[in-house]
Amino acid sequence: MSDAGTAMLSSVAVGDEMAPLSRTVTQDQISAYADASGDHNPIHVDPDFARSVGLPGTIAHGLLDMAILTEAVARWAGGYEQVASVACRFSKPLLPGETVTCTGRVVQIDDAEGTATLDVEAVSSSGERVLTNGRATVRLPRERG
Amino acid sequence: MSDAGTAMLSSVAVGDEMAPLSRTVTQDQISAYADASGDHNPIHVDPDFARSVGLPGTIAHGLLDMAILTEAVARWAGGYEQVASVACRFSKPLLPGETVTCTGRVVQIDDAEGTATLDVEAVSSSGERVLTNGRATVRLPRERG
Repeated sequence: MSDAGTAMLSSVAVGDEMAPLSRTVTQDQISAYADASGDHNPIHVDPDFARSVGLPGTIAHGLLDMAILTEAVARWAGGYEQVASVACRFSKPLLPGETVTCTGRVVQIDDAEGTATLDVEAVSSSGERVLTNGRATVRLPRERG
Repeated sequence: MSDAGTAMLSSVAVGDEMAPLSRTVTQDQISAYADASGDHNPIHVDPDFARSVGLPGTIAHGLLDMAILTEAVARWAGGYEQVASVACRFSKPLLPGETVTCTGRVVQIDDAEGTATLDVEAVSSSGERVLTNGRATVRLPRERG
């Protein structure tokens, strides 16, 4: 199951896919993320500097990409409070103006713990695998309500 | 080694600790993070709502806590571009006005890959273990410069 609302442990099976979530990241958002996170590395906000170190231009913070990936998981699970842990590898940069699409698939269910674990990843609209080796564990209610 | 600058693979050993990084998180920063990340869950910005669901007040986003943890790792490694992957469990909330302290310890070195892996965690000034089961892998240069 992957429609709106809360997933439940009893209705989730290994192999289930979460609804893909796509977001287009803008330079304004990246700049706001720099202010909010305190990460003012110029590769995120200064195109000339970014090019001087071999990048095609500014890039989004890896943790901003991860925030979008976590949003996809949280939407599937029914809320951020359900997200117990996340992990990923920062593989390729996401550029402003690009759209990132986050996907995931249930790979393990732990009935005793009341958790489901998903393999997750994020791919850019230019086909780059932005976040790889992603894994998220969510706590799911056993019954509705 | 954990002083300012770039860590090098040859000078890092299992058991090395990274310099702890402490940051005090304010409601302004949490609100800015909500805007930047797109996560406007009222538990982060509305104290009355947060209390209505059993929290002591608003709480920081788990990924904001993780951003600070990642900053600690990046400082130790010599830059965010060295951070290959991060993982953690969101264990306890961090409240505005609290200081979070992030620590880490090298647990594995992979000479072939040119990486070091650290166990990392974040503890709040009220003694809560905010982020646990943390793990970060960083790419380190083999020689200076």
